[in-house]
Amino acid sequence: MNLKPSGRRKFLKKGVALAGSAVGVIHSANGQIIGPELRPNELYDYGIRSRFVTSERIGTNGFGGRDIRPGVPRDWGFRTPLQDSVGIVTPNSLHFVLNHGYDPPDIDPQKHRLLIHGLVERPIIFTLEELQRLPSVSRIHFIECGGNSAAGGPGFIPGLVRTMPPANVQQTHGLTSCSEWTGVPLSLLLDQAGVKTKGIWIIAEGEERGMHTKSIPIEKAMDDVLVVYGQNGEPIRPEQGYPLRLLVPGWEGINNVKWLRRIKVTNQPAMGMKEMTRYTRLLSNGKSHWFEFEMGPKSVITRPSGGQQLSGPGFHEITGLAWSGGGSIQMVEVSTDNGRTWTEATLQNPVHRKSHTRFRFAWNWDGKETVLLSRCIDDQGWVQPSVAELGKTLGLDLSLDFFKERSGPVTHFNAIQPWKVNRDGSVQNALFV
Amino acid sequence: MNLKPSGRRKFLKKGVALAGSAVGVIHSANGQIIGPELRPNELYDYGIRSRFVTSERIGTNGFGGRDIRPGVPRDWGFRTPLQDSVGIVTPNSLHFVLNHGYDPPDIDPQKHRLLIHGLVERPIIFTLEELQRLPSVSRIHFIECGGNSAAGGPGFIPGLVRTMPPANVQQTHGLTSCSEWTGVPLSLLLDQAGVKTKGIWIIAEGEERGMHTKSIPIEKAMDDVLVVYGQNGEPIRPEQGYPLRLLVPGWEGINNVKWLRRIKVTNQPAMGMKEMTRYTRLLSNGKSHWFEFEMGPKSVITRPSGGQQLSGPGFHEITGLAWSGGGSIQMVEVSTDNGRTWTEATLQNPVHRKSHTRFRFAWNWDGKETVLLSRCIDDQGWVQPSVAELGKTLGLDLSLDFFKERSGPVTHFNAIQPWKVNRDGSVQNALFV
Repeated sequence: MNLKPSGRRKFLKKGVALAGSAVGVIHSANGQIIGPELRPNELYDYGIRSRFVTSERIGTNGFGGRDIRPGVPRDWGFRTPLQDSVGIVTPNSLHFVLNHGYDPPDIDPQKHRLLIHGLVERPIIFTLEELQRLPSVSRIHFIECGGNSAAGGPGFIPGLVRTMPPANVQQTHGLTSCSEWTGVPLSLLLDQAGVKTKGIWIIAEGEERGMHTKSIPIEKAMDDVLVVYGQNGEPIRPEQGYPLRLLVPGWEGINNVKWLRRIKVTNQPAMGMKEMTRYTRLLSNGKSHWFEFEMGPKSVITRPSGGQQLSGPGFHEITGLAWSGGGSIQMVEVSTDNGRTWTEATLQNPVHRKSHTRFRFAWNWDGKETVLLSRCIDDQGWVQPSVAELGKTLGLDLSLDFFKERSGPVTHFNAIQPWKVNRDGSVQNALFV
Repeated sequence: MNLKPSGRRKFLKKGVALAGSAVGVIHSANGQIIGPELRPNELYDYGIRSRFVTSERIGTNGFGGRDIRPGVPRDWGFRTPLQDSVGIVTPNSLHFVLNHGYDPPDIDPQKHRLLIHGLVERPIIFTLEELQRLPSVSRIHFIECGGNSAAGGPGFIPGLVRTMPPANVQQTHGLTSCSEWTGVPLSLLLDQAGVKTKGIWIIAEGEERGMHTKSIPIEKAMDDVLVVYGQNGEPIRPEQGYPLRLLVPGWEGINNVKWLRRIKVTNQPAMGMKEMTRYTRLLSNGKSHWFEFEMGPKSVITRPSGGQQLSGPGFHEITGLAWSGGGSIQMVEVSTDNGRTWTEATLQNPVHRKSHTRFRFAWNWDGKETVLLSRCIDDQGWVQPSVAELGKTLGLDLSLDFFKERSGPVTHFNAIQPWKVNRDGSVQNALFV
């Protein structure tokens, strides 16, 4: 019998027939050996994946994703393998990560506190247990980094070699993920504190070393923002802000402050370093645009997508994700002929607001070279643009050369993503091809 | 600096300030040590939980959940920690497990096949890749073991000592879980094979050593049954049937055949051993009822629930789960005075069909002893019964003594679950108290 080790997870063991062994050894009830079985310990307490499932996050830059060189902290992150996604839920273990220069702090939930103060009648400090006693809500929402699918490829760091254009959908769009979030409406906490009339902004602060802060207008804070402790049925993960994070539905990722420890109500935004240097947009008139918030509308085909291989002509379902920070996805259209014709795709129901929305499209591939596209429209009437249309709006020549020269991402890049299908069934990024 | 090991997960490391170190060592950008940070390797490829989160599945019997003694294979399983649940999604790592005597087979997805044959025009064999090319759907559904919350306590095995009544909601109700499942409608596969007129049942078979089979009427098979490969955004887990399982929405767990390898269309049920000995119900007229299918309607308060501790009088949200195999949950009512008065709870929207539905209820505890109850009604008008009502229907005296004597579970036990809140804030099972 060939007892081979199963690699780094080490949980494969062959089922063996042993008479009279102690409980804990696998028995074959009828004496027959049918095939190998899996050992239970790692499987049952808190389960793990099959050893045949290897989908993983990948880093955004040449440092395996983390850039923790001394000096000014740099944004770095890890991308979700959207090419392997099914449905709309992103597993917590694969949710994208974008950190502002630091690893997650190791927070003891018993010791963690959330302070709400500033322009309020009654400053309050909450323990986690106190927050979890309050009225809660669960909603499915995406979070997307403002620099996602920026055509800037894998990195944010000047001077690093990049593959242009990026090869697959994890590299192009992997800084978005979607979860069922559970927490307390921020409006409830602010109401308990009693926001004064002059309080028209909040400044949220995290507990990591950089103490990232973000300013959010009070209108949004009182609308649909949550202070969340749960993600997909369990506590949020360390890299997502354990034990508490802000969830700011539909707005760019930087607003969703992790390791949340303080919310200050103010009469003006904080103009944090990150807000001034990174998350702004230079307009064609030479002015800089601060405080861009809502993401999308955006869609991308996740299968077939760059780097995948069609096994041959015939039926292949086309599927992907669409989302909009403005509201719900109303319609997704797919083109299988590089934009000459467009046909409406089927949306997975129910469609959630400010959530990934799975779309599906029946396709019979005739074996010829073609380009696959998707575009979406949200319930506010916003339409996902082509790259030419987006360039015109931004006053930028969004070409391959432009991105090769550029040191940072073009934020809020939501252009239609083309995937070229070659005759041999290989699929590649055709954004600037 | 105190570098202490972090227990079995071993990922805690203190952030240290080292000038000029190689990339990969954690630097403090400003030379200050603020607190410990988490090492990235385990966090970022395929993430793990905080070391402070320890919620786990527990076994159903005295053998740590597994009963693999030689002889006739026995059902054994692991229960979901519902007391820690938030929202409606169960994390894959915590989904309940009920196996029919064997550990999960270790299946190579490249080699796995699904055969559809029997009373069909064209028998077909599918590879996993072929199935994944077909039109897919994702839906949120619960799966519940027919023996869940059977009041039979932690075990199914005659002769084992039990704690009666079971102490917490994991023990009473932990054999139900809920996921976003992705797969292919079975109707589509059966249509491709061409079911003959005489084909009025299907028999589904798994690849584990016991080769568990289950008979399902063709009407259900052609209705909403799925052949699933995805669960909460990733491949289903080994203990859930990797790489393929049947998903039979709303019907008792045994129908959801795991490690699915064969579907035979027949003109009669197979009367598998399990179907004849375990999943039947003796009626008061002395006859035995085979083929009971639909689960629920059922609800249970998950917080506060048995074994939990209220920190003191004041506001405590009451929250729990409701589900029905017959359709959607229409209403949940909560009583905080042992059934004297009932008030409607808030349902988490959207409500999915044949899915866990989270309910929430605002409660100000006055510090006095009381009993908390929940009851639900589904959109077919079915109402969750009290234990007295259920006993009357079944012709059984559902008392503590009855269950102490009984060797197996009372299947489809969906009685209202009472939790007693004591003055010291402790909560305990009050089903037969």
